[in-house]
Amino acid sequence: MTTYKAPIRDMRFILHEVMGAEALFATMPGTAEVTADLMDAILESAAAIAEEVLAPLNRSGDEEGCRFDNGHVITPKGFIEAYRAFAEGGWIGLSGDVEHGGQGMPKMLAVLFEEMIMGANSSFALYPILSAGATLAIARHATPELKALYLPKLYSGEWSGTMCLTESHAGTDLGIIKTRALPQSDGSYLISGTKIFITGGEHDLTRNIIHLVLAKLPDSPPGPKGISLFLVPRELPDGQGGVGRANGVSCGSIEHKMGIKASATCVINFDGARGYLVGEVNKGLSCMFTMMNYERLSIGLQGLGLSESSYQIAAAYARDRIQGRAANGPVNPQSAADPIIVHPDVRRMLLTVRANIEAGRALALYVASQLDLAHFHEDSSVRADAAKRVALLTPVAKAAFSDRGFEDCVLAQQVLGGHGYVREWGLEQNVRDARIAQIYEGTNGIQALDLAGRKIVRDSDGLLEGLADEISAFIKEQSSQARMQEFVVPLTVALDALLDVTRWLKEVSAREPDEVGAASVPYLRLMTLVLYSYVWARMAKAALAGLQTGSSDSRYYDAKLKTGRFFLARILPGYKSLVEEIRGGSAVLMALEADQF
Amino acid sequence: MTTYKAPIRDMRFILHEVMGAEALFATMPGTAEVTADLMDAILESAAAIAEEVLAPLNRSGDEEGCRFDNGHVITPKGFIEAYRAFAEGGWIGLSGDVEHGGQGMPKMLAVLFEEMIMGANSSFALYPILSAGATLAIARHATPELKALYLPKLYSGEWSGTMCLTESHAGTDLGIIKTRALPQSDGSYLISGTKIFITGGEHDLTRNIIHLVLAKLPDSPPGPKGISLFLVPRELPDGQGGVGRANGVSCGSIEHKMGIKASATCVINFDGARGYLVGEVNKGLSCMFTMMNYERLSIGLQGLGLSESSYQIAAAYARDRIQGRAANGPVNPQSAADPIIVHPDVRRMLLTVRANIEAGRALALYVASQLDLAHFHEDSSVRADAAKRVALLTPVAKAAFSDRGFEDCVLAQQVLGGHGYVREWGLEQNVRDARIAQIYEGTNGIQALDLAGRKIVRDSDGLLEGLADEISAFIKEQSSQARMQEFVVPLTVALDALLDVTRWLKEVSAREPDEVGAASVPYLRLMTLVLYSYVWARMAKAALAGLQTGSSDSRYYDAKLKTGRFFLARILPGYKSLVEEIRGGSAVLMALEADQF
Repeated sequence: MTTYKAPIRDMRFILHEVMGAEALFATMPGTAEVTADLMDAILESAAAIAEEVLAPLNRSGDEEGCRFDNGHVITPKGFIEAYRAFAEGGWIGLSGDVEHGGQGMPKMLAVLFEEMIMGANSSFALYPILSAGATLAIARHATPELKALYLPKLYSGEWSGTMCLTESHAGTDLGIIKTRALPQSDGSYLISGTKIFITGGEHDLTRNIIHLVLAKLPDSPPGPKGISLFLVPRELPDGQGGVGRANGVSCGSIEHKMGIKASATCVINFDGARGYLVGEVNKGLSCMFTMMNYERLSIGLQGLGLSESSYQIAAAYARDRIQGRAANGPVNPQSAADPIIVHPDVRRMLLTVRANIEAGRALALYVASQLDLAHFHEDSSVRADAAKRVALLTPVAKAAFSDRGFEDCVLAQQVLGGHGYVREWGLEQNVRDARIAQIYEGTNGIQALDLAGRKIVRDSDGLLEGLADEISAFIKEQSSQARMQEFVVPLTVALDALLDVTRWLKEVSAREPDEVGAASVPYLRLMTLVLYSYVWARMAKAALAGLQTGSSDSRYYDAKLKTGRFFLARILPGYKSLVEEIRGGSAVLMALEADQF
Repeated sequence: MTTYKAPIRDMRFILHEVMGAEALFATMPGTAEVTADLMDAILESAAAIAEEVLAPLNRSGDEEGCRFDNGHVITPKGFIEAYRAFAEGGWIGLSGDVEHGGQGMPKMLAVLFEEMIMGANSSFALYPILSAGATLAIARHATPELKALYLPKLYSGEWSGTMCLTESHAGTDLGIIKTRALPQSDGSYLISGTKIFITGGEHDLTRNIIHLVLAKLPDSPPGPKGISLFLVPRELPDGQGGVGRANGVSCGSIEHKMGIKASATCVINFDGARGYLVGEVNKGLSCMFTMMNYERLSIGLQGLGLSESSYQIAAAYARDRIQGRAANGPVNPQSAADPIIVHPDVRRMLLTVRANIEAGRALALYVASQLDLAHFHEDSSVRADAAKRVALLTPVAKAAFSDRGFEDCVLAQQVLGGHGYVREWGLEQNVRDARIAQIYEGTNGIQALDLAGRKIVRDSDGLLEGLADEISAFIKEQSSQARMQEFVVPLTVALDALLDVTRWLKEVSAREPDEVGAASVPYLRLMTLVLYSYVWARMAKAALAGLQTGSSDSRYYDAKLKTGRFFLARILPGYKSLVEEIRGGSAVLMALEADQF
């Protein structure tokens, strides 16, 4: 049976050879000490905890699931010990604020780490990733007192964090939430309401749980502009670093779900619970959204990590399993049949998964590099440019990695035939676990609407133009490289198609607002194909450079080029149909009356 | 909560208005008595048993699953009673041989019935559908004695049937099975071996289970030409209509699967079990394949039925759930938000599901009509032509309905956001249950290879030409109908693209055998789009005719035309990318060495 191995060689290829991370980090004071050696050491340690601590609990966690017992949630066997080891390794605060006990590592490393833990055990990974998400909002927006009190405990893993947004009637549309915050004379608030779908809302891994809760003040305006953010501990700190009395926070039940069964998804009731304002009154949504760019990328990594895990299982199976004969005659004549990897269609499935993973990982590191620039760079104009790139690419990364992650887990499962449908091989669990990433942290339909609406049609900051300029500059830079033409020519054509249909979309949506929503999902997919072509071209450049060094890794670089060529020949052509689908327009969607559905 | 309702109006539309079933049946003696009234009565009764008996056990069956207890399989609560009601209704022998107690109904009715029961409860439906499959092979190939002894018991549901093909090392490649059949002096055989993935291999629904088993005689040639088919009862009949002694057949275990949890998937051990030859020695595979065309279509219907069930849930949810505002201003200003069906992207998801279901159902009835012609028609040349159409379209129908069925269940699940991921709404179960249909009865990759290889590249019977002639004749017939041009023009273009790339494929695969497998899956998808365009054009013709009658159903026909237009504008364009993907060729797939994966 194949068990998860962190793809360190591939990660180092992108980090060092494609992105030149060490040189990038050297330009910024906050990251200057992050050398290639340090990065490699962190990747090795991360791989060890993912492979040795988390992966062994993945299937048992799924089988056992979380149990709900009278307000308490019991996580599966082994989770408490694993969480302790994980916390002691300092992983929860990996990219946390140094001043309060975080490690201050750049997002480019956190991205690779999160891909590993998501791939090894998504259910487990959600607990620390949610905590890390909560610390981001606190570090950015909370008062110095709240930071000093809560951040060290969250980074150390003694306490954990959640985000409480959704209510039963309000998911995508947070403007209509009902949870109330009553101001108290001491400056605190009493929070009352019920939140649903709270990941890690209750569990037995930490001594306390710190909820970040969206709620409305009595006199706040209706809609999204009347929402504030509060920090609400399950138990109030006792002032001496410990935990004091209960705070009117209780878990009503947990959900029974398709997957991520070892991750507790909770109904959380707040009954006049003491809460503390984070950020300004009525600015809760924007406080949440500053961390959303980080979180959405992390959720995308769930798709990527599970794809990688699925690929490893399917590729090993395809090399081992003998069944049928190669079309060009037996490759294994002494045996009753050939390994199924001789069949073109099995290769098509494996290469599709692999080409998507490698492009996705490269894009994830590209987005992370922009997050690092936006956070660490000294030059404010560099920070601003990077922030624009992040704004444009975050919805694409979240939706693309999770959509393709799910589809790729399904493809990998298909390689195993009936053996993929039964539990033993782990692929059916990967499919179930991957499915949620398309839904939470904003459904992928909402990501697409954010992209096509706010980031394209209503954008006035030149978001797409900035990206297109960068890609065009790369194409131009490569124009004299003969061996790069097979990669940059298709990229040029696809980029032109994107820019062309973008102009069309801006034009028609000025007349008909429904055109944005009608185009959004295929538009996001089209942009994904252009971005994947771009990073494939950059990977090809690095692979060609690697081949020229005459290193012993020549077969590795050769495989990169071949996978890139597969992408161009067999996946990129999808852009043509997407353009036509977009141009198919909104009228055919809006023609039916609601009762005709 | 939405519960499954058989889509009788849509079924009648295709059966009567598109396919003209009554007129077709009137031309054949075996079906002459199948009037429109009789068909409608059967549909009503079928709907009643699907909605009232099967659907209520769908979720409880999934939650409870089958239990394995010391060689016995216990089905979920209520299954025994439901099976009895089902059998007493005569449904197992619906299209069975009249001479031995079957109802003799045409496949066009069986298809609609099977879609209903698959949609209401796939796990349950598999028990009778497997029995019906076994009766087909027996009725066609067994001796008169075996028929007389087994068929009445199978049609009545007293006993049930299975098909035992797969072994742990042999799934797709049945040529390497190890199960042995030793000839006995009385003309029977002793069967020894272990079969896996046997649907309904053991359960508590019937008094006896009749296995159809593929095995090899000691002196048979190696490979697929050395396989014979045997009837092996779990218990030997006592000669008085009852059950006698045990026959060396035992269930070793059941699988733990992603879905269809109430369907027992068994390891079955045969230890010198008494078996009776069905058909000729060494012709076992071709005996199996005569029923495969029926079974594969039925498995496709699983995808169709579960899509329909998922669509009903998602459409009702989309009309009910309020969240956000319409892009063109509130449609529901007195409420806090609009129903999500106002959003173009929600409509895109629903219409995709719906356009696929309606086209799939029409194609299923078209294939069924060809099966009926091949079976019931008096003119042997009509039978032969119909059999060719069946041979060509069966792999397409199986793979297309199950691939799109799964994808459409996922899309419907997405409409519900987080509520789709939890158990309550039933969509996550539909996704898990639909997944298997892409895998069993020959994976969809194998269906595609059968199509592109045997039915296209190596075909010398003019299979595709026959279909293309029919479609061209339809296009020509409609050339003077102005309102039909929006449907037949895109059909013409897509058909030309298919024929064009077919010529290319035949040419290149003559030089390079791997081109067939490299093209097969996108080729099958391309043909699906052409066929769906064809049946959409035929549905449009029927809807326009319906509108001209000035009936009170005008909004129904109007919705049909609008759904068809959506298909043409937003789904059909996929053909362009498929053509390019096919032309991408095999070289990029075969370039990597096995160890480079």
